Amino acid sequence: MTLSLSSLPEHYRALVIGASGGIGGGFVRHLAGDPRCAGVTALSRSGRAPEGAKITSGRIDLEDPATIEPAIAAAFDTGPVHLVIVASGILHEGDLSPEKTWRHIDADAMARVFAVNTTGPALVAKAVLGRLPREGKAVFAALSARVGSISDNRLGGWHAYRASKAALNQIIRTCSIELARKRPDGLIIGLHPGTVDTALSEPFQGNVPEGKLFTPDYSALRLLEVIDTLTPQHSGRCFDFAGEEIAP
Amino acid sequence: MTLSLSSLPEHYRALVIGASGGIGGGFVRHLAGDPRCAGVTALSRSGRAPEGAKITSGRIDLEDPATIEPAIAAAFDTGPVHLVIVASGILHEGDLSPEKTWRHIDADAMARVFAVNTTGPALVAKAVLGRLPREGKAVFAALSARVGSISDNRLGGWHAYRASKAALNQIIRTCSIELARKRPDGLIIGLHPGTVDTALSEPFQGNVPEGKLFTPDYSALRLLEVIDTLTPQHSGRCFDFAGEEIAP
Repeated sequence: MTLSLSSLPEHYRALVIGASGGIGGGFVRHLAGDPRCAGVTALSRSGRAPEGAKITSGRIDLEDPATIEPAIAAAFDTGPVHLVIVASGILHEGDLSPEKTWRHIDADAMARVFAVNTTGPALVAKAVLGRLPREGKAVFAALSARVGSISDNRLGGWHAYRASKAALNQIIRTCSIELARKRPDGLIIGLHPGTVDTALSEPFQGNVPEGKLFTPDYSALRLLEVIDTLTPQHSGRCFDFAGEEIAP
Repeated sequence: MTLSLSSLPEHYRALVIGASGGIGGGFVRHLAGDPRCAGVTALSRSGRAPEGAKITSGRIDLEDPATIEPAIAAAFDTGPVHLVIVASGILHEGDLSPEKTWRHIDADAMARVFAVNTTGPALVAKAVLGRLPREGKAVFAALSARVGSISDNRLGGWHAYRASKAALNQIIRTCSIELARKRPDGLIIGLHPGTVDTALSEPFQGNVPEGKLFTPDYSALRLLEVIDTLTPQHSGRCFDFAGEEIAP
């Protein structure tokens, strides 16, 4: 299935952060396949990314703030970028695993999860938002998650991850107010990708109903189609892969 | 005006963290003045707290996780504690000041604000919730803030503070689900104290309408009265000084 983001300017350029991940790689591949897209900058900690004629790969480490501004500046120095997606995030890694009870709350784990899931995207927003083109639709999107919704929280657990995504949703809302003044055609949104068959969800796929575990490519495609439908009036909010808004 | 928290067991005991602050000190004084209250443990980083026959002061530093469990254990080792209030928090301090624009977002400032405003109260909850009495009303309350509400965010700015309080609200909601299973008569809530004449709000009082700047003692009294009206069905949510719920 070929994507065509018709709401973005023809010859639009895109930037994907977390391009070595499952969903991030899906974004890069679909965007590079869009005939309207002139180029994709694909950044990741390792520098790994899908390859292709339109794709320029590079490095960024959201836990090393000094890497963020130069990486973003380099992407925008080549020409205007109309779509920026932050697809990185952490749920478990090594000793870090999501809390099943308040007894598992840990200061170091919380600091790490906030740094990667909240402060990293916030620093990318800081570097990106003032550089977005002044005319035409321009989008900053970050992967949030339904479990970051406070009002939708029914199961509990995953304290740090849930809190980091709620905090990210608040960063997105806060930045949307300034963006509306400075780039009236711009929007900043959170996206819920569904449960996707990636390393992030791998230990937690047992309870996913049949047909509800998406491939990374399918999730990325659905989210890009959602991005194509959104307008500045949707800025500051969070949407799922079906385009449904997720309440804070 | 004398407080009487009639919904708590007679001879209830209370624990206030952040007892050297304006609102925290107000909580300690009002609780010590309640004839139904048998004792108040008043903890702060400096060890300073109001003095009185019923008051036991001590030290805790929410930025030094190793101090939290021993301080909480000591308070509960003396006898059951029915009301725990976390009244600490940071908005500005030294070089740290709330962001007016996304250009002010700073990784170190965000880490500090999350550590004090979110992770600190979460670690206190971890130490407290399993120790709450199994019978009778028991309350864990933390000072949140209306500006932590994502849906109520109209002015923007204050990125780190807003995000830290949204994250705190999510921690409270997450813990409430486990608390409902383990302590059905217990509740965990966030509280918005209004704009209170303290060091925290001092640089930002210029825009407060006349009559809307509370003294710390008045705010603490109003919040204690709200706590007295709340039941387990209110657990996991955030309420202002008038008892109105603040949506996430």
